[in-house]
Amino acid sequence: METHLRIGIDVGGTRLKAGVVDARGTVRDSRVVLLDAAAHGEEGLVAGIADAVSVLAERQPARIEAIGIGMAGVIDAAEGVLRESPNFPALRDVALRDRLAHATRLPVSLDNDANAVIWGEVVFGAARGCADVLGFTLGTGVGGAIVLGGRMHRGARGMAGECGHLCIDPHGPPCACGARGCLEQYAGRVGLERRVRQGRVFGDRTDAVASDADLPLHLSRIARDGDRLAAGLWRDAGRALGQASGSLLNALDVRCVVIAGGLAASFDLMRAGFDEGLASHSFASLREGLSVVVGALGADAGVVGAAALAVS
Amino acid sequence: METHLRIGIDVGGTRLKAGVVDARGTVRDSRVVLLDAAAHGEEGLVAGIADAVSVLAERQPARIEAIGIGMAGVIDAAEGVLRESPNFPALRDVALRDRLAHATRLPVSLDNDANAVIWGEVVFGAARGCADVLGFTLGTGVGGAIVLGGRMHRGARGMAGECGHLCIDPHGPPCACGARGCLEQYAGRVGLERRVRQGRVFGDRTDAVASDADLPLHLSRIARDGDRLAAGLWRDAGRALGQASGSLLNALDVRCVVIAGGLAASFDLMRAGFDEGLASHSFASLREGLSVVVGALGADAGVVGAAALAVS
Repeated sequence: METHLRIGIDVGGTRLKAGVVDARGTVRDSRVVLLDAAAHGEEGLVAGIADAVSVLAERQPARIEAIGIGMAGVIDAAEGVLRESPNFPALRDVALRDRLAHATRLPVSLDNDANAVIWGEVVFGAARGCADVLGFTLGTGVGGAIVLGGRMHRGARGMAGECGHLCIDPHGPPCACGARGCLEQYAGRVGLERRVRQGRVFGDRTDAVASDADLPLHLSRIARDGDRLAAGLWRDAGRALGQASGSLLNALDVRCVVIAGGLAASFDLMRAGFDEGLASHSFASLREGLSVVVGALGADAGVVGAAALAVS
Repeated sequence: METHLRIGIDVGGTRLKAGVVDARGTVRDSRVVLLDAAAHGEEGLVAGIADAVSVLAERQPARIEAIGIGMAGVIDAAEGVLRESPNFPALRDVALRDRLAHATRLPVSLDNDANAVIWGEVVFGAARGCADVLGFTLGTGVGGAIVLGGRMHRGARGMAGECGHLCIDPHGPPCACGARGCLEQYAGRVGLERRVRQGRVFGDRTDAVASDADLPLHLSRIARDGDRLAAGLWRDAGRALGQASGSLLNALDVRCVVIAGGLAASFDLMRAGFDEGLASHSFASLREGLSVVVGALGADAGVVGAAALAVS
């Protein structure tokens, strides 16, 4: 029986997750490797990925056909080169695809993590069967990916899809990218933290936030408990996401918007704001028949998506 | 000798211009027909186009291969249907392509006017040879078109490219589309008029504006003469256009931005603002090697572009 196994790898800032994914998008085996980017740099990253692949391949009776890697940053997918990455600031123009193809003797694809996640949703998840998709990944920041005519839109140099920096308000809060009022300042975790810190008061409930990473979950809980300020933050996040979706819908005429990433679990809290932002910033004839869906692959999205993007 | 003649038709609100265009993009013959949309509606439009084609074809010794039509509005290019048009508010879902193919016995293509103009610039004009292009047409409003991988991006339902309604500032001036702060409120003629009327004072120089249609030319003249307020309006228009270009560059990774339409003649006055807006709202690695050009086809752009889009 042909199983068409691939290994998908989701490279984060402090760890990578590798998984053996079958033709149905099921993760059959997986492995997490801690990364110390500062200590090992390029060599550590290559060794970490190669080790994970080697262990998974040995444990797997069937043949692995290809490897797909998704990671945050500016990736030249055509050349398989990591141009720059927020998680590995010391790395520049690393030919990661070719180094790993050499180390593993398997075909390797390298892509932006948001492209991987959204492609996973198109092939196996919430946007299955949709050929024209605008996708957002809501995490620490906001990533994006655009699928047109059934293919990942990579752009002239493979760097397309940076929808997290679409300007929502030129007078808005400063973004790490240097601009003001980028989408990710409203709909990403760091943006939410900033808004909580800058003058928004949640009374003693704020004390319950153990760390920044827990903030979205906390905000989600208290919003569901009736906290108006927290509910307002989610509504604002939704409105910004709706405005960005509307502008890009007018430009691209897609049929589906997918919201993925960790914060997508709170999309129900953003939905009213999203609908308002979308309706305000797009033509009715372009919204006709548009579906807006939350990613269905959850925590496995990065691994499944990277495997789906792998070219065997 | 094979000349591959096509007829390109640029349908405006009060008149249409039809031209015989050869394989080099040269207009060999042309004809202007006044339209009375209110009086004749669909029949008048079809008859006006068919008459112009018939006269031009009779005067032309060589065979006409195809007809291309560009007009403002929501056009379903795949089906050849005019969904709605600001210039012909009474017309809805008119199968213009098939009606004209029947009347002229020639292959007919129907497209949005901005698509036609920008495609003309890609095939014969300022963006020649560029496969990934973001184009804006600055006229009464602002139109847009997107060329990806050497092909006009039409989107899922042929309605893509409405870049004039990308939101520049959610607190900005209201737009006819119902949203606030759309690009066309800053960089289109009607938007400029509004800004001039709403509290901006040009002293006695404003009296020189004979009609709204002359306003951009007037603003351009006095800005060149050193009028700071007029110069500021152009800079703001440029900044809005730069912001929109930056957001779409990040999303699409194009290599060229083309500014066409009547107001593009003042792009030199917008350029500083444009560069500022673009730099503030896009990643440096995406701007690398980007060319920003002004349309080269001038008043013939609509006719030449429509002919270039015609499929023979």
